[in-house]
Amino acid sequence: MARNNSLDMTSAEFTRIGNQLLEWLANYLDHSERFPVATKVEPGSIRKKLPLTPPLHSEPMENILLDFENIIVPGLTHWNHPSFMGYFSISSSKPAILGELLSAGLNVNGMLWKTSPAATELEEVVLGWLRQALGLPPAFHGTIHDTASTSSLVAMAAARESLRLGIREKGIAGRDLRPLTVYTSEHAHSSIERAAMILGIGQENVRKIPVDDSFKMNPDELREALVNDKKAGNMPCCVVATVGTTSTTSIDPVNAIAEICEDFGVWLHVDAAYGGIAGMVPSMRWVLDGCEKADSIVVNPHKWLFVPIDCSVLYCRRPEVLRKTFMLVPEYLRTDDRDVTNFMDYGIALGRRFRALKLWLVFRYFGMEGIVERLQHHISLAQKLRSWIGSHPSFEIMAPSPFSVVCFRCVPQEWRSRSEVMTEPINQLNLRLLEAINESGELFLSHTKLNGRISLRLAVGNLQTTEQHVTAAWGVIQRIYGRMQDAVRELSIPG
Amino acid sequence: MARNNSLDMTSAEFTRIGNQLLEWLANYLDHSERFPVATKVEPGSIRKKLPLTPPLHSEPMENILLDFENIIVPGLTHWNHPSFMGYFSISSSKPAILGELLSAGLNVNGMLWKTSPAATELEEVVLGWLRQALGLPPAFHGTIHDTASTSSLVAMAAARESLRLGIREKGIAGRDLRPLTVYTSEHAHSSIERAAMILGIGQENVRKIPVDDSFKMNPDELREALVNDKKAGNMPCCVVATVGTTSTTSIDPVNAIAEICEDFGVWLHVDAAYGGIAGMVPSMRWVLDGCEKADSIVVNPHKWLFVPIDCSVLYCRRPEVLRKTFMLVPEYLRTDDRDVTNFMDYGIALGRRFRALKLWLVFRYFGMEGIVERLQHHISLAQKLRSWIGSHPSFEIMAPSPFSVVCFRCVPQEWRSRSEVMTEPINQLNLRLLEAINESGELFLSHTKLNGRISLRLAVGNLQTTEQHVTAAWGVIQRIYGRMQDAVRELSIPG
Repeated sequence: MARNNSLDMTSAEFTRIGNQLLEWLANYLDHSERFPVATKVEPGSIRKKLPLTPPLHSEPMENILLDFENIIVPGLTHWNHPSFMGYFSISSSKPAILGELLSAGLNVNGMLWKTSPAATELEEVVLGWLRQALGLPPAFHGTIHDTASTSSLVAMAAARESLRLGIREKGIAGRDLRPLTVYTSEHAHSSIERAAMILGIGQENVRKIPVDDSFKMNPDELREALVNDKKAGNMPCCVVATVGTTSTTSIDPVNAIAEICEDFGVWLHVDAAYGGIAGMVPSMRWVLDGCEKADSIVVNPHKWLFVPIDCSVLYCRRPEVLRKTFMLVPEYLRTDDRDVTNFMDYGIALGRRFRALKLWLVFRYFGMEGIVERLQHHISLAQKLRSWIGSHPSFEIMAPSPFSVVCFRCVPQEWRSRSEVMTEPINQLNLRLLEAINESGELFLSHTKLNGRISLRLAVGNLQTTEQHVTAAWGVIQRIYGRMQDAVRELSIPG
Repeated sequence: MARNNSLDMTSAEFTRIGNQLLEWLANYLDHSERFPVATKVEPGSIRKKLPLTPPLHSEPMENILLDFENIIVPGLTHWNHPSFMGYFSISSSKPAILGELLSAGLNVNGMLWKTSPAATELEEVVLGWLRQALGLPPAFHGTIHDTASTSSLVAMAAARESLRLGIREKGIAGRDLRPLTVYTSEHAHSSIERAAMILGIGQENVRKIPVDDSFKMNPDELREALVNDKKAGNMPCCVVATVGTTSTTSIDPVNAIAEICEDFGVWLHVDAAYGGIAGMVPSMRWVLDGCEKADSIVVNPHKWLFVPIDCSVLYCRRPEVLRKTFMLVPEYLRTDDRDVTNFMDYGIALGRRFRALKLWLVFRYFGMEGIVERLQHHISLAQKLRSWIGSHPSFEIMAPSPFSVVCFRCVPQEWRSRSEVMTEPINQLNLRLLEAINESGELFLSHTKLNGRISLRLAVGNLQTTEQHVTAAWGVIQRIYGRMQDAVRELSIPG
């Protein structure tokens, strides 16, 4: 059939511009060090360079890409920079970037099996691979969501439905129901509390179970909280354990927690968004001990499995409860297909991008061997850094580092003997250190607060990060700390 | 600094493979007609071709891409095919595909302003452009979410919070709260009911307001439902009007509904995911009449604004309520930045892809003129088709077509005089017609049910779709209908 393609960009232009962008990206990824890790732009300064009203006329792509390079790029924080070590470095890889290009080009919507059978079946196969790689039993059914916030919300909604209170049909209000309660450690990710807010459970019904010295949930305290709520007539709905908390990457004792959940008949959800991926490394398999007993577990390939954001996987041992919670098929999406998975029945979003493709490319391009090697490499870089920091007289390690994140702070030697009374000055000093590090443009870190103590977080997870970068990072930290003697004097309290 | 990039694909390979993929995609997009629109694969047949266990060793990209072409592509439903006219054709464009490539390559996470200022500010600017293009006042604050299901859930959560019942803090249970109620037309998208399930409102508290002959919500019935619920002591939480329903693209009378919402002090959310985009066309601006009075409104650029899935925009006139509903800042994300937007405070997900980039490319590459021209073109193609179908003696139009979707069915001439008693045979005949059309591989349609009558839906929205395709589509429908005389005899009931 004759074609008139004038309504879209021509193919010649698409490949020409596309090739330029690939070259630009290759150069960017190889040399992101030419940019400061964190941009120094002032709030509003990007906005000011862009017109307030939409462009009336079509513009050549070349002009638009000049603006991209001159206005947008300088205003980015460069997550690809090998010295971006804040938060969890969102790890990506070139094969997965190409996977996103293909997904965008195909632009299929995997809501139903029928709307793209290969998208659904590839998701099933690749999530089967990941499940096996994590050592989870076949009963766990996987679904890809955007982020762990969504995955955990979906899991907690299913937990609520598993109480068989008819909440799907009748809602919660006007029914004389006792408060629903959720249990998680005081170090759990904010998404758990946010999910409780959304689900109508309420912040006050989130029991933040205290942690031990290494920031792990105390199971005795969990049991006590459950006993108290049962006594009060409340309805425990869900316990959320964490494998790799966001602050310190601590690992809750999932086995002990699972036992308690069984005793009380409560849904166990495990947030292993970051830490779970490490379970692919045979010597790290223990981090997922007990997770096979969970009702649901979330792991995020976009956190540490070399795919660009977004890609979060929720595994659930009770997929029928997910369907009971979410399934709602309008006439226009009704199909007669048997023995197929319609992923729209397992979560919030109806429309679904073809995210399995990038994950498939990563599994095949690197292979399990290659993935494990890379994860081990990140862990070993972090462990080196930890040993360097730990042996410096003006620094101290603030938490165990089972994965590739190190929490530390500086404590001037002369303050060390009275570090308790000096907590506030030490906090101030560490915030200033963080600010100065991030302003250097050479390194980017983030922070947290542990028992009232500001701690700096250094996360390794980027394929571009080598031992040289980790060495350089430690050099930057020491150098900038060395320049802070004025601040030390200023903040000091006579002892 | 010397670099060791061996942990990722080399840049040389990245650009080489990337160029091949661009060529492949260009060819695919230009010639997607060489594929049947909908694949004919059997359930499980893709899965069977893929190994059950994860690959141990790294494989060359060439091998992987052969499997992509030989196993994955034949199992896809080709949404890019110019004769894909089911659901809402998810419109995309080549500049936006390149935008996705860039976003994946940059891989920034726009959760906080600080984590990539340009990502946040570009989102603000581009959503400002879209807002103006839709004729909405500046008070509307925009945020990009993945899909309209999420946008509407976020809006309805804010509506619930706006009741000032302290649900965020205290939850819903154990508080002697009267039932919360939601109002939407019986033709609303399933995501509204699903959001009510998630929010603990419950399906039974979703009042499905009857529609008039043209499938628009009846405002008198809405008022009556509100009066009844108030009388019963229930707590009306949210009214959801639709501009472009999924079945027939009907437009609820938003002005009248807004007046009622004001009378009752109830949050008005407008689901304009598909239809709202048409408001960019000056002669179609009326479709958004009254939306300026809404509290929130969702429009989906991935439905009809030439960006790949996903990209849904929620505009909200009360952004402070969104923050009150969702904001929760853990220590590790606390910043001192003033006068900035931290988009993570406005919804469910914490991590956020850089989706504004593709939308920016579309606005600039096509310009407002070009966008409007393309939307008009789609509408005019659909209107032509509507007139052809409407004048055929064996077909009838089932609903008004204000946008680019046509609902119709076949009714054999000999059945026409007694079409009421023949409803079931006519339904069967139309389902068979749909099945035969989709099996032809030449055209893909979907269906809905209107007052008990199966209706076929034909949606135009793809930049590749020309008048020739629409003409061909009508040819396919007539040809296949012509072959169904056996079915007509078989299904006929003696009259």
